[in-house]
Amino acid sequence: MPTTDAAAFRYEALAEFITGLIRRGTLPPGTRVPSLREISRQRRTSVTTALQAYRLLEDRGLIEARPQSGFYVAQTPHAIAAPAKTRPPARPTEVAVPAVMLKLLEHASDPKLVPLGCAIPSPQLLASGGLDRCLARAARVHGVKHNIYTPPRGDLSLRREIARRALRVGHALGPDDLLVTCGCTEALSLALRAVARPGDTVAVESPTYFGLLQVLQAQGLKALELPTDAQSGVDLAALDAACRVHTVSACVLASSFHNPLGCTMGEAKKLQVLALLAKHRVPLIEDDIYGDIGFGTERPRPFAALVPRGQTIYCSSFSKTLAPGYRVGWVAADERFMPRLIEAKVASTLCGPVLPQLALASFLASGGYDHHLRRMRRVFQDTLHRMVVAIDQSFPPGTKVSQPAGGFVLWLELPKPVDTRRLFVQALEQGICFAPGVVFSASGRYERCLRLSGGYGWSPRLDKGVRALGRLAATLG
Amino acid sequence: MPTTDAAAFRYEALAEFITGLIRRGTLPPGTRVPSLREISRQRRTSVTTALQAYRLLEDRGLIEARPQSGFYVAQTPHAIAAPAKTRPPARPTEVAVPAVMLKLLEHASDPKLVPLGCAIPSPQLLASGGLDRCLARAARVHGVKHNIYTPPRGDLSLRREIARRALRVGHALGPDDLLVTCGCTEALSLALRAVARPGDTVAVESPTYFGLLQVLQAQGLKALELPTDAQSGVDLAALDAACRVHTVSACVLASSFHNPLGCTMGEAKKLQVLALLAKHRVPLIEDDIYGDIGFGTERPRPFAALVPRGQTIYCSSFSKTLAPGYRVGWVAADERFMPRLIEAKVASTLCGPVLPQLALASFLASGGYDHHLRRMRRVFQDTLHRMVVAIDQSFPPGTKVSQPAGGFVLWLELPKPVDTRRLFVQALEQGICFAPGVVFSASGRYERCLRLSGGYGWSPRLDKGVRALGRLAATLG
Repeated sequence: MPTTDAAAFRYEALAEFITGLIRRGTLPPGTRVPSLREISRQRRTSVTTALQAYRLLEDRGLIEARPQSGFYVAQTPHAIAAPAKTRPPARPTEVAVPAVMLKLLEHASDPKLVPLGCAIPSPQLLASGGLDRCLARAARVHGVKHNIYTPPRGDLSLRREIARRALRVGHALGPDDLLVTCGCTEALSLALRAVARPGDTVAVESPTYFGLLQVLQAQGLKALELPTDAQSGVDLAALDAACRVHTVSACVLASSFHNPLGCTMGEAKKLQVLALLAKHRVPLIEDDIYGDIGFGTERPRPFAALVPRGQTIYCSSFSKTLAPGYRVGWVAADERFMPRLIEAKVASTLCGPVLPQLALASFLASGGYDHHLRRMRRVFQDTLHRMVVAIDQSFPPGTKVSQPAGGFVLWLELPKPVDTRRLFVQALEQGICFAPGVVFSASGRYERCLRLSGGYGWSPRLDKGVRALGRLAATLG
Repeated sequence: MPTTDAAAFRYEALAEFITGLIRRGTLPPGTRVPSLREISRQRRTSVTTALQAYRLLEDRGLIEARPQSGFYVAQTPHAIAAPAKTRPPARPTEVAVPAVMLKLLEHASDPKLVPLGCAIPSPQLLASGGLDRCLARAARVHGVKHNIYTPPRGDLSLRREIARRALRVGHALGPDDLLVTCGCTEALSLALRAVARPGDTVAVESPTYFGLLQVLQAQGLKALELPTDAQSGVDLAALDAACRVHTVSACVLASSFHNPLGCTMGEAKKLQVLALLAKHRVPLIEDDIYGDIGFGTERPRPFAALVPRGQTIYCSSFSKTLAPGYRVGWVAADERFMPRLIEAKVASTLCGPVLPQLALASFLASGGYDHHLRRMRRVFQDTLHRMVVAIDQSFPPGTKVSQPAGGFVLWLELPKPVDTRRLFVQALEQGICFAPGVVFSASGRYERCLRLSGGYGWSPRLDKGVRALGRLAATLG
């Protein structure tokens, strides 16, 4: 059942209250936060509301649960401030992917470089051994028999497994509400084709995932970049204004742990977003690719799970958590969008390869995925924490950095107006790759920003790379 | 080296001369054709020219080589005439895929139906065992290490193997001229995106592969359907007129063994097509998906192999010959088109799965593919021959049927103006699937035509299905 608006406001208000105590130093890192019982008595709320508030704070990385002991303020070095809310232009922009993008794509997976550029986990962390064994078995057992086209939606056994997992976060799906894609890129591409035509305007977070910008550009769509906060996500008033002033065909938002900003909206805000978009009859396309790698105790629920039969097309994939090499993603939507999604799929790739889908289905059914996810989350939480420490100690004073509660990327804003494209070129010479800020904007913004990926996990080499980059950044300007 | 125009005309003229002798009954089925030495003396040409002419006749299925014995008129029952050259409207048409298409896609792979509808070989004929073993090995040996995104062009080892095979037909390609796709559908889709924008007009054979029509529709492209002959392919004068009268952004043609018509152009005609398109600066997109399953001694050369650095984008895949379930195709083009192809690929699917590509590369390197192809060609030649006999004996008198020299589909034209959509519904009730003619046209033509696939190889069940369909067709109208 979706949380009601009023209840949501209560727990978000409580979360804000605790956040204030942490920010002002009333509750310094490592101290115990009032127990659920104490805080609910003090603030005159129910224990349920207090628990929801604490889970949101956990999701945001501000507090940590310690078994048998309660909640504690996280050790993250809050000396570093989060980046300010972005202020992109309030008009649709023709998407022009900057030239530096090609250079980034060329270098992002070069093993000779310190891998801060590429937002996929290292093959070692992904540890696909179990999945690969499922593939080998599928090829031996089912190869000849399954050497056929699947239906356009994809293999039924995989769709069943995906639907089962979705149910855990309250996202009720049948196999026919799902269409298997070639990664999240195809999912986003099909979703946009289903709701927008060339020349249309699509509202997006700013900054946003550069792959989305490439899809918009290829489809001749304009981007309307929305002001977005590294903590709380997209600006509601700006979204409302955008939908009032412009004809917006779709809005694309991250479900949680936004790439590159790291923001996650609480459920109350998600409901507000949904209500606002419903008012303007703008379909939402949500990208939940990082949803499974949150550091909190509970996985954030996607938009689609909050309002059944809302105008939401859900996109995700296994590329960030398990198998970028398998290229299996999916899109979920009901019968209002599915025929157009199928039409777009048939005209794009017809259907995906069978055996990787069978392998994923049997790997998911085996239960190995959850164990793997728990391990990944610990690694990434630790990695980002150590990276923030290294940034704090090496980047110029005044550098701002996001503190996401999931995923594995950090967004940095340098204090002086420098061009991180220059930093990018100099860093490459020193054997370090990262993603300069401009690639995340349709309108050439974020010159002084950069994204660092912790996808390869912490290592002395990564640490050295972050520190060298920080020293280099200090010499710029 | 490309054949010069004059030489090409000489051998095609000789081929026409022999065709006339066969058609008029001077050389009845089963008789020996004059030897190369005899005919070259009689017609005052070189033995090379005579050999080229005989190979073309072989490609067209009119004569057969018997080892140590010479050339003989093929036994195909020439009592059945080929369909007349088609006469589609000479204007661009908005593509509207007919409703019956969905029904066809739904039923085409239903194992309970006699499989005359689906143009893929049966899994048993495809015999992917060797390839599946390569996949199992790749997963075991390379799984974890290769759990990464490939470059947008795809795995290098596979591109090398594809380039090696292309060289055999004189198509000189480097690995960087190739981009691996998710089947031929993605290849055609990317090729069209690289050269055409929504609203543009694309010239196509008529009838044409319905998957191409779906791609055109999805991309908002108009189809200009060209008159096409079941033997000699597209009408040159009509192509010329189309390019003169309309702004044509691309022309899409089959390299050989056209689906559904079965036509294959000789090299002289291919050169004329290329010259004509070059004159009008219209890029050619060629679909060579059936090229490896010709019944003649020599594989027909694709357009791209005839004129180096022509304005040709080459598309193909392994889906008709080896592994529809693997969804691996490719597009070949030089540096004039490649950047746009890569851009479209990145925005469509980013890249394809790694392990199926590695498996295909090692299967191709092992040499097993050629042996497999030889077997497939024999099976399909035999199947189509038997199907034509069954059609001759069961369909209403006056039914015309194509006689392709490769591939595994037949195109039938019924003598009376009936609607094969009705026949389709009735046939489904009798447990038989086929493809009604209208799905192969953007302008709703070919109501009295149908396509039968021999992809499952001949069997008593298939034979019974063809004959039952013939009797049913005789009752219509």
